[in-house]
Amino acid sequence: MSRVNQLLSLVADDMPYVDEKMRSGLPEKHQDLRAVVDYLVGAGGKRIRPALTIMAARMRPVEAEKLHSLAAAVELLHTASLVHDDLIDNSLFRRGMPTLNVSWSPAATILMGDFLFARSAQLAAETDNIRIVNIFAATLMTIVGGELNQLFNDGHSRVPTVDEYHERIYAKTASLFAAGTEMGSILSGAPEEEIKTQRDFGYYLGMAFQIIDDILDFRGDEEHIGKPVANDLRQGIATLPVMLFNQQQPDHPTILKAVRREGVSDDEIHEIVDRIRASGSVEMAMETAVKFARQAQDALNKLPGNLYTKAIHGLIEYTISRDI
Amino acid sequence: MSRVNQLLSLVADDMPYVDEKMRSGLPEKHQDLRAVVDYLVGAGGKRIRPALTIMAARMRPVEAEKLHSLAAAVELLHTASLVHDDLIDNSLFRRGMPTLNVSWSPAATILMGDFLFARSAQLAAETDNIRIVNIFAATLMTIVGGELNQLFNDGHSRVPTVDEYHERIYAKTASLFAAGTEMGSILSGAPEEEIKTQRDFGYYLGMAFQIIDDILDFRGDEEHIGKPVANDLRQGIATLPVMLFNQQQPDHPTILKAVRREGVSDDEIHEIVDRIRASGSVEMAMETAVKFARQAQDALNKLPGNLYTKAIHGLIEYTISRDI
Repeated sequence: MSRVNQLLSLVADDMPYVDEKMRSGLPEKHQDLRAVVDYLVGAGGKRIRPALTIMAARMRPVEAEKLHSLAAAVELLHTASLVHDDLIDNSLFRRGMPTLNVSWSPAATILMGDFLFARSAQLAAETDNIRIVNIFAATLMTIVGGELNQLFNDGHSRVPTVDEYHERIYAKTASLFAAGTEMGSILSGAPEEEIKTQRDFGYYLGMAFQIIDDILDFRGDEEHIGKPVANDLRQGIATLPVMLFNQQQPDHPTILKAVRREGVSDDEIHEIVDRIRASGSVEMAMETAVKFARQAQDALNKLPGNLYTKAIHGLIEYTISRDI
Repeated sequence: MSRVNQLLSLVADDMPYVDEKMRSGLPEKHQDLRAVVDYLVGAGGKRIRPALTIMAARMRPVEAEKLHSLAAAVELLHTASLVHDDLIDNSLFRRGMPTLNVSWSPAATILMGDFLFARSAQLAAETDNIRIVNIFAATLMTIVGGELNQLFNDGHSRVPTVDEYHERIYAKTASLFAAGTEMGSILSGAPEEEIKTQRDFGYYLGMAFQIIDDILDFRGDEEHIGKPVANDLRQGIATLPVMLFNQQQPDHPTILKAVRREGVSDDEIHEIVDRIRASGSVEMAMETAVKFARQAQDALNKLPGNLYTKAIHGLIEYTISRDI
């Protein structure tokens, strides 16, 4: 059993309830809408965000019904933002299945996303905890703000800085990880210090998680990963290895062409990927990820030890050692 | 001073605070975002939703800061849904000013709407009242659900029924009117019976308001109204006068062509508008609006009488007698 499965097995009893919550509360008559939600919920994903939310809450006794609503709210918020993202990026596949925008009009896809945002807010409100709702809404603002930022920077002529990268992956990933662990901890009635530690833990784990995800784009062969190497860079998105390479060899023409979205050929991509790999930038990026992961572990060590923290330590070791 | 201005003068002291709330809470660094919010808030609109929310709350002493947050949340929710609507409908003007989608890409417009939704939810949470947040989220679901419904019915071959029309205008307009008065009343700590009456009042007023808005599309000459007559029907949207006409003379070929979006000529539109007017359907639609308005007044009469209820009675008389 993999480390992730080991971790998820601890919340396995909760997950069917979380899924049920995600599918619930839809108007009877909207059959199309119900079909779409079934499709999105059924398409799965790793459910790491609700799992972390549940584990943060289960440090102490917590009302299961509210916890499942909160975990469902977190995953549905994530799902809703992916629905709009895929439309904006014109992505055709997500988790190996066709995206909504493949079969639905832009209008329907926009409204589906809006509906899921609304439903996720309603689920968050089911916790009966206004502080949780506040964090929930603020996190959505952070996520969307990050995307707007990226959009407005598109077509800028320079390679973003490492600081800008950190801001971006915070908005994209770490903000919801951190919100999930923080909200779970609040729901359980944890003392303020523990809530803060849980938030820190979620934040550091999310940062490590996203950096590793970005590194994967530069490692392995194309057949292994199942998508073309340096897919991000092909789309004009510079990630940490690119930035670290850019610090060594500023303004390589291929990278500039890529971030300016002027179109780079397959040959150019392969050549620059070879250069980036040879420069040691991928390993340096991995060191940054490990640093965040260790900070996550430090936070974890401040929490009461139990099966959950043990499993999360396992997850972190796994995260660091992902097949890269 | 018009009846609307008379009404709005009662909340005039509050409105600058509401506007300020609408502009607040935006990340410092997102200059584009701030500019857009300034533009949307500055573009104005009648602010009838926040005005009703405030008046419902002011039946008794209420914390001003929270009330302004709530009123701003209501107006921002409305604004956010218009941002997505205008993109979906490819509308170029709103309140006499270019829409966002004229100057921004679809991607930026989608994200702007999402951001405003998130901010509106955060403002609703500032009331510190979870029941209000619940109603707020449910109302967003109703609004978006109504739009999805309309979208899925597009291209259907028949003229919608009067019941379907009522459902649609509830989702589009009356749901937020009702939510505004209900939430305002809850915030003020009103007894349950009064909260229900306030909700009923908002509902009936919203229904009347939307029917009259739809009727205006059939009255007056084009120069007077400032947009082409039967603009809704040109876009394939059947409103109450069309449905009432359809009950008298089912399946007129021009109307079928219009709702099937097969394209109708200017001559065909003018001919069918003349027929609808001559049939008395516009007057019948007005009778329905007046019935809703009278129900709003009945609800109002159950509330403690004060300057606000008096002004609202004035508004209703005005609404009924709008220049049509």
